[in-house]
Formats: sequence, structure tokens, C-alpha cells
Amino acid sequence: MTVPKSIATIGVAIMATWYSGRDPIVASCALSIAAGLSTYFLVPTLAPLFTQAGLRGKDVHRASQPIVPESLGLVAATVYIVSLFLFIPFVFYDWIAPSLDPFVSARNAHSFPHVKLGEFLSALLSLQSMTLLGFADDLFDIRWRSKLPLPLIASIPLLMVYYVSGGITWIAVPYPFRSLLGSSIDLGPLYYLYMSLVSVFCTNSINILAGVNGVEAAQSLIIALSLLINDLLYIGGPDYPASQVHLLSFYLLLPFVGVTLGLLWHNWCSVSLLVGDTYCYFAGMTFAVAGILGHFSKTLLLLFIPQIFNFVLSFPQIAHVVPCPRHRMPRLNGKTQLLEASTASLEDLSSLGKVILLFLERLGLVRLEKASSGSLTTTTNLTLLNLLLVRLGPMREDRLVQWIMAIQGLGSVLAFIIRYRLVSLFYDVIS
Amino acid sequence: MTVPKSIATIGVAIMATWYSGRDPIVASCALSIAAGLSTYFLVPTLAPLFTQAGLRGKDVHRASQPIVPESLGLVAATVYIVSLFLFIPFVFYDWIAPSLDPFVSARNAHSFPHVKLGEFLSALLSLQSMTLLGFADDLFDIRWRSKLPLPLIASIPLLMVYYVSGGITWIAVPYPFRSLLGSSIDLGPLYYLYMSLVSVFCTNSINILAGVNGVEAAQSLIIALSLLINDLLYIGGPDYPASQVHLLSFYLLLPFVGVTLGLLWHNWCSVSLLVGDTYCYFAGMTFAVAGILGHFSKTLLLLFIPQIFNFVLSFPQIAHVVPCPRHRMPRLNGKTQLLEASTASLEDLSSLGKVILLFLERLGLVRLEKASSGSLTTTTNLTLLNLLLVRLGPMREDRLVQWIMAIQGLGSVLAFIIRYRLVSLFYDVIS
Repeated sequence: MTVPKSIATIGVAIMATWYSGRDPIVASCALSIAAGLSTYFLVPTLAPLFTQAGLRGKDVHRASQPIVPESLGLVAATVYIVSLFLFIPFVFYDWIAPSLDPFVSARNAHSFPHVKLGEFLSALLSLQSMTLLGFADDLFDIRWRSKLPLPLIASIPLLMVYYVSGGITWIAVPYPFRSLLGSSIDLGPLYYLYMSLVSVFCTNSINILAGVNGVEAAQSLIIALSLLINDLLYIGGPDYPASQVHLLSFYLLLPFVGVTLGLLWHNWCSVSLLVGDTYCYFAGMTFAVAGILGHFSKTLLLLFIPQIFNFVLSFPQIAHVVPCPRHRMPRLNGKTQLLEASTASLEDLSSLGKVILLFLERLGLVRLEKASSGSLTTTTNLTLLNLLLVRLGPMREDRLVQWIMAIQGLGSVLAFIIRYRLVSLFYDVIS
Repeated sequence: MTVPKSIATIGVAIMATWYSGRDPIVASCALSIAAGLSTYFLVPTLAPLFTQAGLRGKDVHRASQPIVPESLGLVAATVYIVSLFLFIPFVFYDWIAPSLDPFVSARNAHSFPHVKLGEFLSALLSLQSMTLLGFADDLFDIRWRSKLPLPLIASIPLLMVYYVSGGITWIAVPYPFRSLLGSSIDLGPLYYLYMSLVSVFCTNSINILAGVNGVEAAQSLIIALSLLINDLLYIGGPDYPASQVHLLSFYLLLPFVGVTLGLLWHNWCSVSLLVGDTYCYFAGMTFAVAGILGHFSKTLLLLFIPQIFNFVLSFPQIAHVVPCPRHRMPRLNGKTQLLEASTASLEDLSSLGKVILLFLERLGLVRLEKASSGSLTTTTNLTLLNLLLVRLGPMREDRLVQWIMAIQGLGSVLAFIIRYRLVSLFYDVIS
């Protein structure tokens, strides 16, 4: 029975932290390791319950197309939320500790960092809402238009707390536009709309670059690690407020890396489970929350370069200018056991669609097939995964995931270059 | 399509509030009505999705035992949470409004009621956690011992905020014990443990007094209305802090009454749906949260007199001193179409069990059947529902639910008498 094992692991982490001085950073590290181990233990134990409950899907990237449990992201998300719940008292330990002495307690209650607690609570609330939405989506296949407003509502507590914590809503204007707009403009309520849209964007972009075992967790891992590196550039640095907000982001991301590793261990090009929309939404919202509360939403968007590229490439199909089949994931060639780019039939192609496809072919982004009459018959589907298979040829599933990880890593390097080097071409503020 | 209808309803509520001066009380009333209507619209629309997803159960209180969708409490809980998310900005409107003027904004940000926001966020967080747990329980049938620690963890944010908001942990000692303990004692950390246990108690006690269509929502409705009456005794009264905490409880309970009415409309002795553990956990946690943040957890427990009686009566079966069948709900007599008390066979009855059952028979709480040899053969199951059927004879399902509502109402009257009249026998503090 692995439930007691998981409880024991988390218990050991708390005890270890307690005896090492109750430092929140130590607590975060210990709880992240414990969360990773718990996810690792719990996923295979709970997987049969998911299958039983009807949460299952076909693994189409195996010749036998086995039925595997789906939505195992729920286990990772739940362990993550529980570990953050347990972490809260450590962050505020200095204010809780003297509670036995009423005088000290009263003094400390006055200096209590309410905004910090509000940030934690709203982060958890938004995260949990999106986990619930992702899980509901896995179960009920919620329609696109019903789904869209929910991340906006889920981000209300977060924006409320952002407002309370001083809520900077002005942005520096890049040099080329300063003659028009001045050196900075206050976006006011528009800035809050922008942050809401960041959460909509993040939750959906992991979901779109999906469809091969392990790719959701693998890309999220690289993004999370990049964000952690970015946080470490500020933590303990001379700019105290920046250090504090990046510390908060660090506390949110470290256990995320833990549970993602625990999940990825079982999901790595595996025949055993699917992570589901639950994981994609949970991962996306973790990034959005860390970015908003860490005040680095623009840097965050830079880390989504591969996802943005994937979205732009997909757009002609999403907008139905080019025919879009129900599933666009790569397909398995039964003979070679390698993945190949999936294709869409082009029977009812509009002339605009044709122009777009020919242009994309010129750029080397699709492979088209033409009838002897010269009209287009099929195109490879417009996703980054298929593009890799077009350019690099058929390959094994794990190879493809490794390529995505490499691209995501390169994207991070590019993002850091833009953020820390090229930014001086447009802005004089480096903070 | 009823999803747009629900969105429109909530939209109208927000607009109405906006034009009537953005008063939080008006907003709460308007959103509660909108939440009730949305639940009423959404439940039948979404019910088929639940059946499809495998969330279904047999309605054993109909002759045909139809398969009906289960866990529809999730719809009520989701609408409730969304309406509270939308409500948050109205509570803090006075602080948000002047945000266009940076000087006013800065001044107001300083006086922002952080504790109030923290209370809202933690209330929502704990509620949402329990909704997620209840839903997971419906889906996966989580084991009892795995379920138990989760409400404790779910209450951490709530306790954290209680601590921050001044966290009174002393209790007045009743007169008879004052010579021993003094006039008041500080329970310190034990008081937090007590509040955690209140949330465990509330979530489980609605779940135990269940098993007949409509009874979960009906009893919750009476409890919520009683708590609202209790809140109205303080709101606007001379004791400003008491008025404020009861206002918070009011804001939490009013939309709950809305969604419960919307759900009960379809669930009232109906063949169309089951509310599931999701609803029981959600309802119980709403009461626990209102009681803890409203600082009336002892009054709250008084309102659970019928549930406590039901639990005490059930205990010999729960502890397996008396044999306990898997289901103890009343059973339908196919001929008369009336509900009768269900029974348990007493083949392996321990001598302690026999003593208890004979004692309960003497009190008129069970009906026993004896073999010609004098040994006991069957007993009616030890629940309040079966007790009513034993004392009052077989009856229709809706009658039985009405009896439970009447008992719950009488329990509330008794609770108020204890709270506001008899309390002076034990305490000199009436607050």
C-alpha cells in the first residue's frame, strides 16, 4: 500500500525541515522531494482506479493501441496542492512561533505579511480552479466556448491580490515609440485584462503542444527549470522587493518540478498512462501564477516561444481555413514502429487555404501531396510535432520528445538573451 | 442551450448590482438569485454528461430502479464558487474604485482590509478542496482512512487566516468547572485542532444522514437558513466586530441557499438525479467555513443535533459491534410503494451487541425480530431515517424528507434556546 508510504515521505520531509531550523527554503526543498516521491509512488497505485472510473484512452502510438488510464495529472496536481498547503505554515513560522506568548503574538500579528499570505492563497485558489476545470474537461469534454471564460474567472483572486500588493499597471514604452507615447504609459484596467489573458494563454498553450506520450510533462519541466534559473538570478540579490517576489515564484515552482519528475518517470514514452488536460491546465496555470505574482509575465511569455510558434503554425487549421481533422497528433507506422507526420485531406480547400499552404511549403513547414491535375490532395498537419517529423524524418516517440525538450531549451536560451541582452536596445530600464 | 442562459442570468445580476450602487449586500442577493437560477438551468442540461462519464447510480427507491446521474452536487458547488469569485470585487469595491487616481489609490491600498480578503480566499480554498475531494470520492470510492486526513489539510489555510485575524483561542469555562479551571482557559494550539475537527465533523455528518432522494439538500437548506437567521441577529447590531464576522458568514451562506434551492428543485424526491458525496462535502464545508470565520463554531455544532443523534445511534453499527450491511438506507416495498425501515441480519451477534440492541429496543429506537428460540434474528438499521419509519410506520419518500426537515427545524429551535436562553446557566458572557 503506497498511500502510507507517501504520507510517511511527506512526514519525513516535515520532520527534517523542523529539525533543520524551519527555514522556508529548506522546507520547500524537502517538501518538493517528498512531493516528487509521493507522485512517483501514487501514480501507479491510483492508475487502476482511473481506468475503473472510465478515465481511460487509447495509446495510439503503440501497435496494439492499448487502453491506458487518463488524467493522471490529477494525482500530480493534488500532491502539489497538498504540499503547498503543508508549506504555508513554514513561510509564516516566525509569526506563528511566539503565539504562546500573547504580547509577542500581538506585536507580530500587527506586522504580519498579509499580502504574502494573500498571494499564496490566491495562487492556490487559481491553481485549484484550473485543476478542477481540467479534470472536468477530461471527464465531460467541455465545449470550447464554455471553457474559455473560466480561466478569466479563475484569475480574479490573483488579480485582486496583485492589485492589493501595489499593483503596478504602467509599462515602459520601447524607444522607437517614445516620441508618440512618452517614456511610460499606465495601462490601468487593461493591464489586468492582459494578466487574465496570460492565464488563458498559458493554460491553453501546453494543451496545444500535446499528443505524444511525455511531451506535456517534458516541455513543462524545461519551462519550470528555466523559470527557476531566472528566479535564482534575483533571490538574495540587492533588489529586496525583486528578491521577495522571485522567492515566492521559487516556492511555487520547486514542488511543481518535483511532481512533474514523479509523473514523467511513468509517462516517459510509456504505455502506462496519459496525463490528460488536467495536467496541461495545472501546469499552465502554475506558470501563469508564478509569472503574475513574480512580476515577470513578459519574461514568461518569452519562454513560450515554441508554444507560440506552434500556435501560429496551427492557426490556419484552428480557424478552419485549412481542413482540420479531429486529431492532428503524429501517427505510428505499424511496419517501422516509427512516428510519422499525420496528414489532412484537402478535398474542400478554399483558395485562401491553398495560398497559405503553398506559402508554408515554400518555407519548408509542411509537406503537400498533389494530384496529377495539380490540385492539392493532402497536407501534413500544422503542428510543431509534425513539422519535426517532416524535417527530420520518421523517428521513435522518445526521440521526438527529446527534440521538443531541446527546442524548449533553446527557446529558453533565446528568451534569456532577449530578456537580458537585447532588452537594452528597446528599454533603458533593466530590472 | 442553457449555458448562455446561466451566463446571462449572472450577467444581469452583476449589472443590476452595478446600477443599484454596488452595495455588497445587494450584490450578494442578486448573485445568490442568479446562482440559484443558473443551478436550476444547468442541472438538467449537464446531467446527461454525468451519466455519459460513468457518474451514475441506481435509484433504489423506485420500483423500476432506474439508472440516474450522480454527483450533480458538482454543478451546484461550481456555480457557488464562480458566484463567490465574481462577488469578491464588490466587497472591495471602495478600494478598487479610485484606482484611476494614483494618490487616492496609494492611500486606500494602505488601509486595505487584508484580513477580510484573506478570509474570503481561504474560505474558497477550503471549500474548493472539499468539493474536489467529494467529487474524487464519488468517482474513485476513496477508502475511509485515506479520506480522513484530507479535511484536516484542507482547513490549514482557514486556520492560518483565523490566526492572523486575531485568533482567539481561549474559551470561557462553564460555572460548574470554574473552581477547577478558572473563568477562562487558553486552549492555544488545541483550539486550532478543535476547529480542524469541526470541518471533519461537518463534512461527514451531512454525508451520514443521507440515502433518500432530497434529504441531503433538504437538511442543508434548513441548517443554512437557521445560520442566516442567526447572522441577521448580529448584522448591523451594536457590536461592530460581531456584525462584521456575521456579515461574512451571510455572504457565504446566501449563495449556498440559492444553489441548494436550484438543486433541490430537481432532486426533491425525484427520479432524475443523485447529488453525490460532492454535495455533502461541499455543504458540510460551507457550514464549517461560515462557523469558523463567523466565530460561532459552538452554535454551529448545536445546529447539528439531528446529525449528532444520527451518528450516536449509528455508532454500534459503524463500530461493527452490531452487524452492519453495506447499505442501510430505507427500502421500498414494491407492493405499497412506501418506504420501510431496512433491516440487518443478526447471525453473528456478539453479546455486547445484544445488550445494546435490547437497550435500544427498550428506548423504542429499533424494532427487533426474535426466533422461536428467543435469539435475535434481525434488527432495523440504526439510522434516524429508519427510526422514523419504525415509529411512524411506512411512508412515501417525500413525507420522510419532510419529517427530516421538520426535525431539523425543531433542532434549530432547540439550538437557539440553548444558545440564547440556557447559556446563562453556564456562562456569564453572552456575546
